[in-house]
Amino acid sequence: MKVAIKEDILKEEDRIGARNREVLHKHGVTAFNLIGSPGAGKTSLIEAAYRQLLGKAKIGVIEGDLASDKDTVRLKKLGLEALQINTGRGCHLSPGMVEEALSDIPLDLIDILIIENVGNLVCPVSFHLGEEAKIGLVSVAEGDDKPTKYPLLFREAAVVILNKIDLIPYTDFSREAFYQGLRVINPTIPVIELSCRTGEGVGEWGEWLIGYCQNLYERMKPENGN
Amino acid sequence: MKVAIKEDILKEEDRIGARNREVLHKHGVTAFNLIGSPGAGKTSLIEAAYRQLLGKAKIGVIEGDLASDKDTVRLKKLGLEALQINTGRGCHLSPGMVEEALSDIPLDLIDILIIENVGNLVCPVSFHLGEEAKIGLVSVAEGDDKPTKYPLLFREAAVVILNKIDLIPYTDFSREAFYQGLRVINPTIPVIELSCRTGEGVGEWGEWLIGYCQNLYERMKPENGN
Repeated sequence: MKVAIKEDILKEEDRIGARNREVLHKHGVTAFNLIGSPGAGKTSLIEAAYRQLLGKAKIGVIEGDLASDKDTVRLKKLGLEALQINTGRGCHLSPGMVEEALSDIPLDLIDILIIENVGNLVCPVSFHLGEEAKIGLVSVAEGDDKPTKYPLLFREAAVVILNKIDLIPYTDFSREAFYQGLRVINPTIPVIELSCRTGEGVGEWGEWLIGYCQNLYERMKPENGN
Repeated sequence: MKVAIKEDILKEEDRIGARNREVLHKHGVTAFNLIGSPGAGKTSLIEAAYRQLLGKAKIGVIEGDLASDKDTVRLKKLGLEALQINTGRGCHLSPGMVEEALSDIPLDLIDILIIENVGNLVCPVSFHLGEEAKIGLVSVAEGDDKPTKYPLLFREAAVVILNKIDLIPYTDFSREAFYQGLRVINPTIPVIELSCRTGEGVGEWGEWLIGYCQNLYERMKPENGN
């Protein structure tokens, strides 16, 4: 019985996620679910995206944290539409939490919604919040073995961002070991190496975001010439 | 009904945790539940403890990971009794998993059991696996705001280990901000700053472990002089 209830809950969650996606589509918003460990640099990555896409696309943000509104304050200062969700003891954002948040975000004013999940490489991967793609973020300081030890995210993400490459000289991080481990889990996933701190590589990150959205619009456009 | 079932499960988990603790006491083993983000340096911290306590106390390890036995192989090479638990999609070790593992570890040969939980600052905090104390591990590279954003662990742990202090010059980590945030959550918790990579501070970590065990034995000893 326990199992049946759990499955019912998961199915209901999936339905809410699908509904969120419809709402987002209706407003022409492409959503991404940003997943990474605590301190991998999720908020910095959003700040970098905002700067890269200035004048090209408007970004809105849903911030998931157990407690505090530090990140939302930080993003709002920059001029982004940002909304905080505090999960208390919750280890991930749920589709229901995002559904509620969507009614408070001015969706007609944004093109891209980045949902910054709770810092956690495990639980957030299992929930579809309404996003088009999951973005897997990992930092050099976490070591080169994360794809091997936390394969779920690296299997499901559309792109891997390797942040804090400026720390490589000061750590034992091996690029060879990282890519070897990642390729076993996901042979084709693109990787963008960058440092939000120094700015190296962030241009490529902005281009990836824009490129992903453009490809999506192309695919969704009704056929011409009829 | 959902809530009632969830509470029943949690109570049953607590019972197993208490049973694990009894088994450990019977064999004179003190257990610690080591909790930190992915890549915070949990396995390196155990290696450091092993080296510090050589000739003083014997350490055994239960390794929790979603996948792979990399860490167990690494620890066994060093000469430790180590046992791997792979949780699959599970975001934390459960008391039941540890119960099973305890029957496979030669408890009479060890004094201290370190249970390395799945890399996660949220879910592992809610489960008592049979340990005397939780050890909260956080690395400089994760930033100085972790206590504010993930208060659960910092509220419940017996000690905070701040790892990778050798990276402070290359990051924006502020000791002042870190301690300020931590003291709001937990005004009295001891903090050990160290770098498993350079060895700085690891002596204090070894002394804390030994000291904690000695205090515990003192408290548990039957009154003398009767």
